[in-house]
Amino acid sequence: MSADIEGWGFYLCTYKEMRQGRKGDVFLALTLQDKTGLVAGRIFNDVERLRDEFDRGDFVKVQGRTEAHNGRLQLSIERIRRVNPDQDRAQGFREEECVFSSARSIDEMWAELIELVAHVQEPFVRELLQRIINANEEKLRIWPAAQIVHHAYRSGFLEHVLSVARSALMLGSAYGADKDLLTAGALLHDIGKLEELEYDGVTAYTREGNLVGHITLGVITVRTAMLQIQGFPDALRTHIEHLVVSHHGRKEFGSPVEPMTIEAIILATADDLDAKLSQVRTALAEEGEGEFTAYHPRLGRALWRGE
Amino acid sequence: MSADIEGWGFYLCTYKEMRQGRKGDVFLALTLQDKTGLVAGRIFNDVERLRDEFDRGDFVKVQGRTEAHNGRLQLSIERIRRVNPDQDRAQGFREEECVFSSARSIDEMWAELIELVAHVQEPFVRELLQRIINANEEKLRIWPAAQIVHHAYRSGFLEHVLSVARSALMLGSAYGADKDLLTAGALLHDIGKLEELEYDGVTAYTREGNLVGHITLGVITVRTAMLQIQGFPDALRTHIEHLVVSHHGRKEFGSPVEPMTIEAIILATADDLDAKLSQVRTALAEEGEGEFTAYHPRLGRALWRGE
Amino acid sequence: MSADIEGWGFYLCTYKEMRQGRKGDVFLALTLQDKTGLVAGRIFNDVERLRDEFDRGDFVKVQGRTEAHNGRLQLSIERIRRVNPDQDRAQGFREEECVFSSARSIDEMWAELIELVAHVQEPFVRELLQRIINANEEKLRIWPAAQIVHHAYRSGFLEHVLSVARSALMLGSAYGADKDLLTAGALLHDIGKLEELEYDGVTAYTREGNLVGHITLGVITVRTAMLQIQGFPDALRTHIEHLVVSHHGRKEFGSPVEPMTIEAIILATADDLDAKLSQVRTALAEEGEGEFTAYHPRLGRALWRGE
Amino acid sequence: MSADIEGWGFYLCTYKEMRQGRKGDVFLALTLQDKTGLVAGRIFNDVERLRDEFDRGDFVKVQGRTEAHNGRLQLSIERIRRVNPDQDRAQGFREEECVFSSARSIDEMWAELIELVAHVQEPFVRELLQRIINANEEKLRIWPAAQIVHHAYRSGFLEHVLSVARSALMLGSAYGADKDLLTAGALLHDIGKLEELEYDGVTAYTREGNLVGHITLGVITVRTAMLQIQGFPDALRTHIEHLVVSHHGRKEFGSPVEPMTIEAIILATADDLDAKLSQVRTALAEEGEGEFTAYHPRLGRALWRGE
Amino acid sequence: MSADIEGWGFYLCTYKEMRQGRKGDVFLALTLQDKTGLVAGRIFNDVERLRDEFDRGDFVKVQGRTEAHNGRLQLSIERIRRVNPDQDRAQGFREEECVFSSARSIDEMWAELIELVAHVQEPFVRELLQRIINANEEKLRIWPAAQIVHHAYRSGFLEHVLSVARSALMLGSAYGADKDLLTAGALLHDIGKLEELEYDGVTAYTREGNLVGHITLGVITVRTAMLQIQGFPDALRTHIEHLVVSHHGRKEFGSPVEPMTIEAIILATADDLDAKLSQVRTALAEEGEGEFTAYHPRLGRALWRGE
Amino acid sequence: MSADIEGWGFYLCTYKEMRQGRKGDVFLALTLQDKTGLVAGRIFNDVERLRDEFDRGDFVKVQGRTEAHNGRLQLSIERIRRVNPDQDRAQGFREEECVFSSARSIDEMWAELIELVAHVQEPFVRELLQRIINANEEKLRIWPAAQIVHHAYRSGFLEHVLSVARSALMLGSAYGADKDLLTAGALLHDIGKLEELEYDGVTAYTREGNLVGHITLGVITVRTAMLQIQGFPDALRTHIEHLVVSHHGRKEFGSPVEPMTIEAIILATADDLDAKLSQVRTALAEEGEGEFTAYHPRLGRALWRGE
Repeated sequence: MSADIEGWGFYLCTYKEMRQGRKGDVFLALTLQDKTGLVAGRIFNDVERLRDEFDRGDFVKVQGRTEAHNGRLQLSIERIRRVNPDQDRAQGFREEECVFSSARSIDEMWAELIELVAHVQEPFVRELLQRIINANEEKLRIWPAAQIVHHAYRSGFLEHVLSVARSALMLGSAYGADKDLLTAGALLHDIGKLEELEYDGVTAYTREGNLVGHITLGVITVRTAMLQIQGFPDALRTHIEHLVVSHHGRKEFGSPVEPMTIEAIILATADDLDAKLSQVRTALAEEGEGEFTAYHPRLGRALWRGE
Repeated sequence: MSADIEGWGFYLCTYKEMRQGRKGDVFLALTLQDKTGLVAGRIFNDVERLRDEFDRGDFVKVQGRTEAHNGRLQLSIERIRRVNPDQDRAQGFREEECVFSSARSIDEMWAELIELVAHVQEPFVRELLQRIINANEEKLRIWPAAQIVHHAYRSGFLEHVLSVARSALMLGSAYGADKDLLTAGALLHDIGKLEELEYDGVTAYTREGNLVGHITLGVITVRTAMLQIQGFPDALRTHIEHLVVSHHGRKEFGSPVEPMTIEAIILATADDLDAKLSQVRTALAEEGEGEFTAYHPRLGRALWRGE
Repeated sequence: MSADIEGWGFYLCTYKEMRQGRKGDVFLALTLQDKTGLVAGRIFNDVERLRDEFDRGDFVKVQGRTEAHNGRLQLSIERIRRVNPDQDRAQGFREEECVFSSARSIDEMWAELIELVAHVQEPFVRELLQRIINANEEKLRIWPAAQIVHHAYRSGFLEHVLSVARSALMLGSAYGADKDLLTAGALLHDIGKLEELEYDGVTAYTREGNLVGHITLGVITVRTAMLQIQGFPDALRTHIEHLVVSHHGRKEFGSPVEPMTIEAIILATADDLDAKLSQVRTALAEEGEGEFTAYHPRLGRALWRGE
Repeated sequence: MSADIEGWGFYLCTYKEMRQGRKGDVFLALTLQDKTGLVAGRIFNDVERLRDEFDRGDFVKVQGRTEAHNGRLQLSIERIRRVNPDQDRAQGFREEECVFSSARSIDEMWAELIELVAHVQEPFVRELLQRIINANEEKLRIWPAAQIVHHAYRSGFLEHVLSVARSALMLGSAYGADKDLLTAGALLHDIGKLEELEYDGVTAYTREGNLVGHITLGVITVRTAMLQIQGFPDALRTHIEHLVVSHHGRKEFGSPVEPMTIEAIILATADDLDAKLSQVRTALAEEGEGEFTAYHPRLGRALWRGE
Repeated sequence: MSADIEGWGFYLCTYKEMRQGRKGDVFLALTLQDKTGLVAGRIFNDVERLRDEFDRGDFVKVQGRTEAHNGRLQLSIERIRRVNPDQDRAQGFREEECVFSSARSIDEMWAELIELVAHVQEPFVRELLQRIINANEEKLRIWPAAQIVHHAYRSGFLEHVLSVARSALMLGSAYGADKDLLTAGALLHDIGKLEELEYDGVTAYTREGNLVGHITLGVITVRTAMLQIQGFPDALRTHIEHLVVSHHGRKEFGSPVEPMTIEAIILATADDLDAKLSQVRTALAEEGEGEFTAYHPRLGRALWRGE
Repeated sequence: MSADIEGWGFYLCTYKEMRQGRKGDVFLALTLQDKTGLVAGRIFNDVERLRDEFDRGDFVKVQGRTEAHNGRLQLSIERIRRVNPDQDRAQGFREEECVFSSARSIDEMWAELIELVAHVQEPFVRELLQRIINANEEKLRIWPAAQIVHHAYRSGFLEHVLSVARSALMLGSAYGADKDLLTAGALLHDIGKLEELEYDGVTAYTREGNLVGHITLGVITVRTAMLQIQGFPDALRTHIEHLVVSHHGRKEFGSPVEPMTIEAIILATADDLDAKLSQVRTALAEEGEGEFTAYHPRLGRALWRGE
């Protein structure tokens, strides 16, 4: 989006407030969200009427023009109204285009997931993965990986899991680790998040998510599935449960047991790196001046954008 | 045991080594264990023959006399031989008398456990406790609570669990907490230790104990039992799982989730206090001179024996 | 207090500010305090005149009606004026009803305190407690236990001390600890707060409170009193001073010496639990939506209100 | 080496002590080192004469037979003498075969290093790497990576550096990082160790290694080389220095600045993983019974060998 | 500055905002800076015209009168305009009088610096100091010591360095440390800040400051200068580099190597004390009521102003 | 003491053990202590008879010759017997010459102490110091400053206190702090150690030392003395108590309150530096090879002896 372009689009309005300008004039300040991020909107004319046309939380159709303001783009809005889903679909309204989403296509990621499972040699592991994936396809396609920290958007869970798998398998081949275990660990380590979180556009913690946590919920999911597979070997079961339970790497990060196998160490490393780089990418993507980003409290440092 | 008494007894020999005295004489140094603790044994005569009569790890029948040595009692042994269980049982040999055990009677503790459960009002909680206790009676009667840290002896698990229940219920009545939940939390919080540890006189960690840990194993045990009880309420299930998962009180102590209810805070407090005081009693019971014990590394201080 | 009820009452006004509403209208926003907590007050009519009727910090007589606003009750005020103590007392004005106070009656708590002391067997300990209590009765009846953290209200000190005594004595009976020492420890552990804090409706730290701290001030108070009792035994004196000095349990929490006796460990546990549960109760009592409270920074977690 | 095999070989004797057996007999206990590790040696016959044939620290020629002892192999030595390098070389004595070494061939690793540099696209980076590698070839081929912690053997530096490069480049391709910077970071991050350590079979810290440390020494080496390359771009120089200075990832691990770019985060991750897995492999390779290794103090846990 | 004085002066305007008073009147709120600190300015009359006379960031000439407001002085401004440097210089405008500066005269401090160097006995150390000081005189005279933390004002670097030298030399004489090394350490420990920071009235971090940090940059500066001095002794070079690299005292404060000599321990102590007391003085100098300052987050406590 | 010198002397024997040499010969190994440190003693001849001439803990008269052994001097003893104090005094036996002692003369240190007090301007402070010093002269002259950590020898307390005073006063003059308060703080900060420790050649902790600690005991001593001085100003009293209570600088080091005044910060700094440098000097004084000392666990690093 560049400055001074006129047009219209569909957004989710996530913020709405009356403000007073320098000259005493009153205007309406909005935050609008689409798939790629957030943009500020301003309504300067016909404020009293337009403010009743929609509420915070509504999908809206907006017409206006972009303009530069303090080094950022904002949308000066001339017309705005609540979306009528049935009617506006014909004009291109898609609910999923108005919420943060993974930059990757869901179908493409799903195909990658299926292929990863197909490459598993160990029949018990493969069956375990197929069962869990089939039973949770609906959630797996759209779930976010977190409420705030990293991959906190539609299909972020799937994107994160595939990325961890890719890194873990590469590192595993370099260090002679068991590929099937790494695939299982990558795909299952966060599986408890399907119960830890609720998601319907916005993300929230469930009661079980708060009180039991995704690590323990994940082990229960995995154990339950393994019990349904006749003859699942004991040592294999324990190793997979260990991968889930130890994947935060250290007790103070919430893993009651720390990684005790090469596969568990690689998995915890790949998970930590992917979470960290997801935050880095988000921080680097934010607009701002200068070579360095603002101080990032969770990472405990600023980041360099490069020259 | 006081000095200069002659007699005989049955022991487990846990240590055996040839040593050289000040005058060049060779003797055999032993550590002998019975229910109440450890005693040093010394064989000064007929060493060459007696050393082949038994090995470390054997139950032995010992004849000798107590004597004071550097402020501690030791046993000067005249005769020693391996126990012949069938034959020596007639003379009073009991394997369980030769291993560290709780000072309380197992049957008395078991009766207390049954009564605690009987006092539970909430029918789902009561049924849950009955099922888990019935299914694990054999282990519950004799299991230790740990390999080293606290209550690390026969029936130490049961002793610890009852002690935590007593404290938690008292505190719970003072603070208006739910008694049934506290009973459930006290009896079930360490239930994963039945799978974390192996015990047959000596205590060891199982593979699952090392790789998955007793907190997660405990939640699985509890969840499995609750699934078998038709209509077990959701919120109740989650609260009980929360009690198990949060009972170490802090992440760095291995609880992936920290206590979020009054009952969970009381349970974690009662568990911590009982574990700490068990260590204190052991340290105070060790012989030694002076008002203060030696520095206790796990507690990070010495203890005062009083004037 | 439920919605839409008319009436009048006496309050302490702790906050007063002019604000502007959505339609440009100006109103007066107040915070009013009585014994049970805080309530928001709003003056929409006759603002200019009423704003001069009272100042922040005044006791006020208020007439108005309750109304719901964003899920909380607030008081829409029609009339308000400064309290005239002499005259308003006839109508029921009591200063102590307008400050946060313990939910328990002072006289009832005082009787409990006296009885606790009467049960002490050891004559030196009993005399010590009597002396200190008699010398400080006025403060002991009304003092808060802290400025912010826990029991931060009128008579909170007494409530806290009794609650710690109750827990410590129960735990002490379970673990065979000395009851007299526990009573002394519970009643005296925070005695330095009588000098650490100033209280006359609002709570503040004194110069000595900031620069010397209540643990050291408490030991001085206790030592001074013991010196006045002829023949007070040395070991007993040191044990009581140890209870005071170690009651925060760990160096990083401000105890220069950590608990080295069973009584000191129990006291530190009971104190910590009572402080924690006081905060939990306050957090749970705050209005709010959903099953979980807001994140509680001092406890480092949210709390569960239950289903 | 399996039990009961006769033969001879060359070793470095790193330990030598007279001991007394159970029957009062005196024997000579040795530790012998070759490329693959350590083996215990025992001399039971002709002890007085053989003990003067060599000293600790000598290369020795040994003849004897392997035998099992407490579950480990040891060498029962019949003949032993100091090596005569000139003469024994004909029989196959190679000094480098008698010190711990990387399992990989030096020449193969060197070729891999050269090829890595050849793949660098950025001409300044490539020239920088070539200069530093050429100037330090002798050390780079044989240097260990540490005195104790990881890759603490001949050519361990080169093995570590190549392993980090492989992981970092794989992760870099997954996350779209700059390959040339990652190659430079991997090859140069520990370059200060060429001055931090001294190595001539045994490894020691130099004065500068102790007082200045390899991170700062590494930046000086890199800066010095860059100053000699005309026109080396400023931002590129700073980025490479940042990779060196931040590669320990956190201040408490000795990096005065923490990683602020994607490349720096990947490099620190790859370095940490390689160091950790080097320790894991060493721990798993140690002989021992049971599924789990002994507790590993530096990693803070035991490791699982698998079923 | 006392209340109710009329006059005029030159300032740097660092803040400028329109605000609304209690009665709906609009005024202009400014922050004005001169050498000694900040003062609030208020423009109540002729606001619309005066607001366009200058911008935030301008040097301004101000006429007005001081008045007390909530216990602080503020400046009620009648006339204000942008400074015209050439013309206003005649009236006494000096840019350096309008920025925070050390309370000490630059020339006096410079003379002290030169004398310190002249007292160095060791010829290599003296030459090193002379070279670095001569090469950086311009920066050394005006540089601040930090952006925020301590001595964050014009010539703060020089003031800090001299203060550390004074303390270190006194302590050094008490403990028999090498005076020349202490002088070198005091003058050079922060030398990397000349490249870590940019300063032209306002202070900012450079790219190298962020990515490499002043400790490493300082060692490079010192090493470079020593290489230009023929015959500089090795051990002396390493000791000076050690002083620079270890001066933060602990790894978690960013020193990759901790002090290993008496001189390094004294230097780190003197640096820490001076930084701490600089913050204390600033905190004590801030206006405020009561014996205690506000809580100081970086020091983690409040400070006592005295009775 | 250099090698191969014959002579005799008086020592305290602190260690005595029979050992076996390489050739099977038995000898007696001793540790002998005099004022300056420890020396190893060996008795090779007439062992059986000489071993009964004295016990560990005895003062002994020794005749022998020094010899080098593994780079250290040891004493090869020909004659040894228990000291007869009355008779041997004529030959120069002085008990205090056989225990570790400060290198400074007690009388000289005492004179310095008296002079420090005489320089105090504030009459209340001066009287306080005089009272406490007069009342404790006997202990103050000979007390050690600790059992192990620093200044752990006869008169170490006095040496430490004077050294802290010297540093604190120098720093105080540089930073404009109150000299009288610094003198008081330096002389009184460790005064509680007179009750924390027992000393009669060997040092031990008292019951109060363990259970109450020297910081709290110190405040009690100081408070008690101040109460006896009519009209001692409140703020002055609190400031001096603050100096005592805060002198460990941080809560985790056992100060329940952290330094809140310039004087308290300087005192904590001077105390920490003196304790640290005392340990450094001890470590540097230990014999050993190489430029670096062994790793010093309490300081967490090795130290550099210089070239």
